[in-house]
Amino acid sequence: MNYIKIDNTAAFTPEVTAESVNALLPQAAAAAQTLEAGTGAGNDFTGWLHLPGSITEEQLTAIERSARLLREECDYVVAIGIGGSYLGAKAVIEALSDNFAALKPARGARLLFAGNNIGEDYLHDLMQLVSGHRFGIIVISKSGTTTEPAIAFRLLKGLLEREQGREWAARHTIAITDVARGALRTLATTEGYDTYVIPDNVGGRFSVLTPVGLLPIAVAGFDIRALVAGAVAMEREGDTLTATYAATRNTLYASGKKIELLVNYDPRLHFLAEWWKQLYGESEGKQHKGIFPAAVDFTTDLHSMGQWIQDGERTIFETVLSVENQLHEVTIPTDEADLDGLNYIAGRRVGEVNNMAELGTRLAHVDGGVPNIRITVPTLNEHCLGQLIYFFEKACGMSGYMLGVNPFDQPGVEAYKKNMFALLGKPGYTL
Amino acid sequence: MNYIKIDNTAAFTPEVTAESVNALLPQAAAAAQTLEAGTGAGNDFTGWLHLPGSITEEQLTAIERSARLLREECDYVVAIGIGGSYLGAKAVIEALSDNFAALKPARGARLLFAGNNIGEDYLHDLMQLVSGHRFGIIVISKSGTTTEPAIAFRLLKGLLEREQGREWAARHTIAITDVARGALRTLATTEGYDTYVIPDNVGGRFSVLTPVGLLPIAVAGFDIRALVAGAVAMEREGDTLTATYAATRNTLYASGKKIELLVNYDPRLHFLAEWWKQLYGESEGKQHKGIFPAAVDFTTDLHSMGQWIQDGERTIFETVLSVENQLHEVTIPTDEADLDGLNYIAGRRVGEVNNMAELGTRLAHVDGGVPNIRITVPTLNEHCLGQLIYFFEKACGMSGYMLGVNPFDQPGVEAYKKNMFALLGKPGYTL
Repeated sequence: MNYIKIDNTAAFTPEVTAESVNALLPQAAAAAQTLEAGTGAGNDFTGWLHLPGSITEEQLTAIERSARLLREECDYVVAIGIGGSYLGAKAVIEALSDNFAALKPARGARLLFAGNNIGEDYLHDLMQLVSGHRFGIIVISKSGTTTEPAIAFRLLKGLLEREQGREWAARHTIAITDVARGALRTLATTEGYDTYVIPDNVGGRFSVLTPVGLLPIAVAGFDIRALVAGAVAMEREGDTLTATYAATRNTLYASGKKIELLVNYDPRLHFLAEWWKQLYGESEGKQHKGIFPAAVDFTTDLHSMGQWIQDGERTIFETVLSVENQLHEVTIPTDEADLDGLNYIAGRRVGEVNNMAELGTRLAHVDGGVPNIRITVPTLNEHCLGQLIYFFEKACGMSGYMLGVNPFDQPGVEAYKKNMFALLGKPGYTL
Repeated sequence: MNYIKIDNTAAFTPEVTAESVNALLPQAAAAAQTLEAGTGAGNDFTGWLHLPGSITEEQLTAIERSARLLREECDYVVAIGIGGSYLGAKAVIEALSDNFAALKPARGARLLFAGNNIGEDYLHDLMQLVSGHRFGIIVISKSGTTTEPAIAFRLLKGLLEREQGREWAARHTIAITDVARGALRTLATTEGYDTYVIPDNVGGRFSVLTPVGLLPIAVAGFDIRALVAGAVAMEREGDTLTATYAATRNTLYASGKKIELLVNYDPRLHFLAEWWKQLYGESEGKQHKGIFPAAVDFTTDLHSMGQWIQDGERTIFETVLSVENQLHEVTIPTDEADLDGLNYIAGRRVGEVNNMAELGTRLAHVDGGVPNIRITVPTLNEHCLGQLIYFFEKACGMSGYMLGVNPFDQPGVEAYKKNMFALLGKPGYTL
């Protein structure tokens, strides 16, 4: 089995030396201890810490059974959720999918996402697509009253019941919600939906390894057992990796590196970066502090953000996700005329060129004053993604404690909602 | 005809007053004058300035004829290009497309993109998709030797010639390149490809209104005449808008707002933000200065980056693209039980809720110390997008001069290429 690795040797600068990073390792270990002991801020929400190792055979079997039903009996399945109820599943599914999956025949139901925006045309275009088809719904909401998913669910539930009848709709709707309370729990009981539970002690952005992420991932046809096994491996063996990442990024931040760019060289990792942005931004961005999380897809974005990264303000560092092995082999052919000048790499794999682009970029950016942390991912498969997920979660909890914030709350997210409710005339709300 | 508008009244802070922004307007006007006079840095590359108004009927007719041929005789058309030879077309096409276009029947050839990364699996998955189909190629490269597009073109050209024969391939390959020089020009002449010219005085990130952008956009089935007409309108009437934007963002930057977030409330604008990131990042990110351009898709990202924006470091401001009218109407239905509590907005359009989310967010973020510039876009159609493109281009040239950089070069982009060539053993390159 192959494991992810971390290399921070290119992250050192005159101000951020190996010694200064090492000096922070005891603080990282203390943060891990605080998480373990459950004595830190937000300790009601550290259920993710030993989640992978505690997932049972029965839970996985039940999720797989639900997924099989939806995959086999539906043309489409719409997963309705926002934030942590969307990004984890989206990240894993994109990372494991064919780059052109939407244009190729599906082996089961196609998974779509909704309730992650308030786009009127988006909902129109979606309903036009699934109308006339047998489609299933996975509705994910702790309360059942969050505006975005509630609107999408009300519309799609209505469409499905009108077209397929209430009984068929209920048999192909699965609710993932609070164990006992809330609007969605009540509705699920009334309608007889199958349900899965969002644990009380796991916040949205840490929930991808609960049914919130696992059911959509299984519906998309991927191996949730391998995903969980990868996370378990990292839960057991990841202490050095997480401490290195947490200590390095906090040292860089203290030295004035205000922006962390999560870099990938494989377009399938775009949404893993989106998931990571929520994880770190929402955990650390409070009390007027926290690294600003941003992401780039290279080499694509070397031809857009590359100039700024090379020569702009020296306030950034990069964390690179480097995938070692591609799934398929494509070799650069020889061309007799060689007008494009590529014959010097003829016979070599495209992935090798990509790896040299990465190495060349690392050298160029470090030269230009951009520290570089490198996380090596052996292959884009379920096991490695499971490792990566738990790695980032654990390092995030530690990193937040090291920064001196509660990494498990998100008080700032409520501000826009209150204003929106007031503007829409919801009883009890004023501007 | 409807026009975009700009409102900077929510951008004022104790440090950035209406007076301080107004005080910068003469400098903005001077920058515009310098562009016009062609006396500033990078004045070899200001051909985009009067490009919209100089596009001829003959040029548009020729592009439409090429597009019709590819649309009618191909199942797929692969546009090969990177950076400015990719992002402009991608931005416009996504903004005008059905949100689920890939899953719905196509009215002509489907447009795909390649040469914008070095993903080995990406190229495998793409070739697997188009193999066995009649596909066309639009290859866009000034030199013909840029690594990413050159690899993609060598592979796809070979596949097409093997499957459909060299003659058919040549008739369905269009090269957009230098007027006289370079590998791609030579190849096009040898093979007899139809060609279009990338003007010498228009840099990649300003090239969307040349054939670089117009041909792919026409192949995707959109109205390039309306797009150009929108840009012409802005070329003639946009002076106040561009000056307001350039003056406001430069004043904010000088006051310590280091990150500009381009915000949309419609997922179709995601790639317009990517295009904008190249435009501003590559133009301004030099000499260790320049605003860091980032982007968020709301309300999606209010549930990920929202916390950081509300409560993180106070070094950001937002520029919001606010689309006033949606194409389709979706109304929130009434529900007797009202468990989700949405009946207070039953009967109202989803877009209205989205608009209130935007307004509520603006109030919340301004309260939290995030200045807000709002650009109102009447509708996502070709005319408005043409306006928006020229608006951002013009304001970018002005803004770069106000910052004291050459907004039309990109010296930092070469650094990684040189290292990559050396690592790959290209003759003449060393680390």
